[in-house]
Order: sequence, then C-alpha cells, then structure tokens
Amino acid sequence: MQLQDIGEFNFIDSINSDVINDASTVVTGIGDDCAIYKANPEMEQLVSIDTMVEEIHFSLRYMTPYDVGYRLMTANLSDIAAMGGIPRQVVLSVAAPKALDVAILDEFYKGIKDQCKLHHVNILGGDTVSSQEGIVLTVTIIGEVPRGTAVLRSGARPGDIVGVTNYVGYAATGLGALSYGYDGYDMTILGHQRPDPQIELGQALRMHGVTSMNDISDGLASELHEIAKASGVNIVIDEQIVPLHEETYTLAKSLGTRPVDYALYGGEDFQLVFTAPKELEDTLKKIGQITIIGQVLEGNNIVQMVTKERKIETLEARGYNHFGN
Amino acid sequence: MQLQDIGEFNFIDSINSDVINDASTVVTGIGDDCAIYKANPEMEQLVSIDTMVEEIHFSLRYMTPYDVGYRLMTANLSDIAAMGGIPRQVVLSVAAPKALDVAILDEFYKGIKDQCKLHHVNILGGDTVSSQEGIVLTVTIIGEVPRGTAVLRSGARPGDIVGVTNYVGYAATGLGALSYGYDGYDMTILGHQRPDPQIELGQALRMHGVTSMNDISDGLASELHEIAKASGVNIVIDEQIVPLHEETYTLAKSLGTRPVDYALYGGEDFQLVFTAPKELEDTLKKIGQITIIGQVLEGNNIVQMVTKERKIETLEARGYNHFGN
Repeated sequence: MQLQDIGEFNFIDSINSDVINDASTVVTGIGDDCAIYKANPEMEQLVSIDTMVEEIHFSLRYMTPYDVGYRLMTANLSDIAAMGGIPRQVVLSVAAPKALDVAILDEFYKGIKDQCKLHHVNILGGDTVSSQEGIVLTVTIIGEVPRGTAVLRSGARPGDIVGVTNYVGYAATGLGALSYGYDGYDMTILGHQRPDPQIELGQALRMHGVTSMNDISDGLASELHEIAKASGVNIVIDEQIVPLHEETYTLAKSLGTRPVDYALYGGEDFQLVFTAPKELEDTLKKIGQITIIGQVLEGNNIVQMVTKERKIETLEARGYNHFGN
Repeated sequence: MQLQDIGEFNFIDSINSDVINDASTVVTGIGDDCAIYKANPEMEQLVSIDTMVEEIHFSLRYMTPYDVGYRLMTANLSDIAAMGGIPRQVVLSVAAPKALDVAILDEFYKGIKDQCKLHHVNILGGDTVSSQEGIVLTVTIIGEVPRGTAVLRSGARPGDIVGVTNYVGYAATGLGALSYGYDGYDMTILGHQRPDPQIELGQALRMHGVTSMNDISDGLASELHEIAKASGVNIVIDEQIVPLHEETYTLAKSLGTRPVDYALYGGEDFQLVFTAPKELEDTLKKIGQITIIGQVLEGNNIVQMVTKERKIETLEARGYNHFGN
C-alpha cells in the first residue's frame, strides 16, 4: 500500500499510538494545532533540530528504515546528552514521495518510537507531507536541565583534562567492515547501525562539574576543534590512550590504516567528549566508561595529538561537512 | 555563489544575526548542541512543526523566496494563534541542493526573520543540510499559554455560536487572480503572498472564553469538520453572512464561480474559526474583525451551510490533502 492510498489524515491517525512515554508532562498530545506540555519551573529548556535526507545521510540500500529512524532519534537525544540534559518531548516531520510503501514509513516510526520509549521521551506532534523525490526526516527535541547548569562548549580552561566516554571510532569501524563485507565485526557493526546516546553519562558528567562537553557526531578531531574554538584554548590528546575497540585495531590492521583515524575522523559515535578541572580526574574515572585522553592548554584553537611515535601532529577540523566538496 | 562554496559552518555563521527578538527568555542561542531558553512557570508550553516542500507547497516560479519564508513562519505562528497562545521560540531546518544560489537562501531567511521580528519570536537554532533535489523547509515553533487555558478543537457545545476573523477566501482570491493574470486584486494578492497570523485576536478570543478554535489553513469547510469531529457536534453556517472581501465577489463574477467556495475550500487564509457560548456574541463583536457565521448543533460531525437560496447544503471535509490523488 502506498502513502497516497491512505491520505495524510489517516496516516497521522495511524502513528498516534505508543507515543507517550512520560504522561506526567503532557497536557494534550498529537491532534490539535499544537501539542501542550508542562515545563518544570526549576529547569531551563533545551531545544535542537536535526534533519536526515535520503541518499545524503542514509540510504535504504544499506540501512533498514527501522535503523534510520532509530539513529535519527539517537542524533537528537545526543544533542540533549551533550548539554547534560534530560530529553522530554519530540515533534517530527516526514516528507516522502506519494508512491512510498507505507510499510517503510511504519518501520521508520517503529525505530523512532522504540528509541523514544527507551529514553522516556514523548512524541507530541508530526507533520507528514509529500515530497517530489526522496525522504526527508526532521526531528525537533526539547529537553530540560537544572537552571544555570547546562554544559556548553565554551567552558574549557587551560589546565583542564580532556575525556571521552566508552570507545571512539566504533561506528566508523562497523561502517568500514560492512562496506568491505568483512565478518567478525558484530559489535562495531551494531554500533554503526544502532548507536545509542549517552544521556545518563552526560547528566553524571554535568553533575560532577565538567567545564565543556560535545557529542561526537562528526569525529573527535572536529568536536575538539569546536570546544577549542568556543573556549579560546588549545587541546592536546595522546594517541596511545584514545579508547579504541579491539575490532578497530583488527580492521585497521587488515586495511593498513591507522587505528586512531577512525576515532578522529569517523563520526557518528554519539559518545561524549568533555573537559574538566584536573582535580576531578579520579572522581570521573570512578563513574566508569570514562577515559582521560588529553589536556587543555593556553592558546587559540589549535588541536594536536602526541602520536605513538611521540611526535606532535596537528589535527585538522575536518569532519563531515554537508556542503563541502 | 553556491551553497557548496561557503560550506555548512560558514552558512550557519552567516544566518546567526537578527534572530533574537525577545532576549528575556533566551539563555544561549544558536551555536551549541542545543539552544537554552526559559519557560514561564505560570504557563503551559505549546509546540508545533510544519514543513514546506518545493514544487509541492511552493514554487519559486510563482513566489519569491522572501514570501516563501514569510508564509512558512505565518503557518507556524498561526498554529500558536489557534490555541490562543503567545509564540516564543523557533528552530528551523533547511535541506537544499548544493548548487543553490546562496542569495535565494538569504531571501528565505529574510522572510523568516522579518516575520519573527514582527511577532517578537526568537530563532534559536537551525540545521542546514544538502538535499538531492529541491528545497525542504521545516520550522518548529514553541509558544506559551496560561495554564489550563489553551483553546482546543474539542470544546464546541450545542448552542454555541460559530465565528471567524476578518475575511475568509481572501488568499484563494489572490491566488486565483494571479493565476489568471487579472489586474485590480491588489489586496487579495498581497493576502495570498504575505498572509499574517491572527495572534492578538487568538489571545483575545481565548481570554473571552471561546470554546474551540482552529486556524483556517485548509479551507473553512475542512476546519469546521475538524471542530465538529473533535467536539462530537454538528455545525451549520449561513452563506449570506460569511465575510468575503469585495475582490472575492468580483473574481467570482468574472469566472462564474460561487463566491463562498473560495472561503470553504480555498485555504491558507490563516484566519481563525471558533465557537463560543451564545451569550458572548455581543462581547465578541466588540473586539472587531469578528463575524458570527453560524451555530453548533447536537449531532456527530455533519457540517452544513444554509445557502443564499435558503437550501441546506452539506459540506464535505475536502481541503488540501498532501497524499490524496
């Protein structure tokens, strides 16, 4: 059955179930001109918008519609995590060709709904329109953070330590293994297909007093540059202690590439990179899933890495740039 | 200059000016993973999302990029108006081909920014991505309304009166005149190109205690059906008192069409249609720009019109349906 067979209004009816995962904040959900929700008066509000375009950000030849929906939500939730916030509400827009099989959209929505359910986030509205060609998915996420505590990119100070959560270069390893058709990369392939946002770690890091934070969507090098630029500092990291998964080492060996490059330029890990006062180092390590990989120096937007050969390598800000050539 | 020449990050920098029109609610604007804003603790929050697709909702052959941006914001602001709310924040997403002339996007943004400025709304974020073909614009708007006072579609009660603001069928008249190349339709052509949301009237109607409200984006017949369905009532209106502009009568005469059909099926007026207790009739008329056109009856989702010939005509819910044939 195609989208044009059921019409816009029936389609909206069909997605209006399993969308409220925390009823305490919802006054009126999908179905009126606006949804109505309650903001916690002790909190400041966070908002972010993300769009994924077919054949630019995803291809249904390589990803299931479920995974596309799941990952779109991950990208949005990760923006809230990067502020140390708590995700609350989303609204979404789908532009799709009239001839699209409704089963594909149902799978998109299932991926979106499952990820929202995992994180107790409500879907409060949607706009469904036809496109001339290709699918364009947009999600706006609204979250909360206690007043005055959101972690910006601009708070890094010389002397701070630099840390990351879990493994970096993980999703890029899975993507690489998939593109070469290699076996034995189950963990990182899953990491590529179904990345998860680090919401709890983001809140824990915020409560412990980290000074700046970013989620790693465009590769570690690019995210470090954003912190360095926003904070007016330099950053230096140590190649030897960047936490890479064993599958990353295996793939790099097979392909003759440098393992750390998957972390620096790979993107879409949705882990967190942060800076914190040096005296927090032991406390932060006790959270678990945290590795300290470098430090913040006086300077102005230079990011460097001490290589295994103990040489200084200056890292470029190159990540994924949607309009670059 | 094309979008690909300046790159995503420079483009975001270039739009990050003239976007804060009410600084009192903004903690951190564009530039981090999320924007941060303050919600008024006395208020409930409203949210809505709208998408416009090139060659589906607009064509740059018939509209200027400025007018497209202006009207997209009108559609969003109108969703807040329809709840009796106060618009506060927007975030927007633009998917556009790499080869798009940057001047066109600048004009889109100018239309969006001017309309936001008029209504003291902040632009708190944006995502700019490349598309394979065509422009897709999405705006999420966040507003506020005093707790428990938002006007839903579901509150119409038998015995209520039905009213509209200003003229209906106005934008459709302008569109019709434009498509035939007729002169002498300056007012309605402007109404088609630069419609405005009825935010102040929406708040006034809310404060006076109207029982249901909708904005007229898909034609009066479709909006009345939405109220009738959500409220579980019938509605009857009187053709003779539907407020039409003189240009609508003139165009209908030229084309041999029925004037009221522009109001019933024309759409994109962004006026408000509402129901209210009968005893409010005189009070509401004193607001000005208000016409009482009918009444609410016991029943279940039947919408009828008493024609000039004093016959009963049952109105279909047909409006613009994005996936219909």
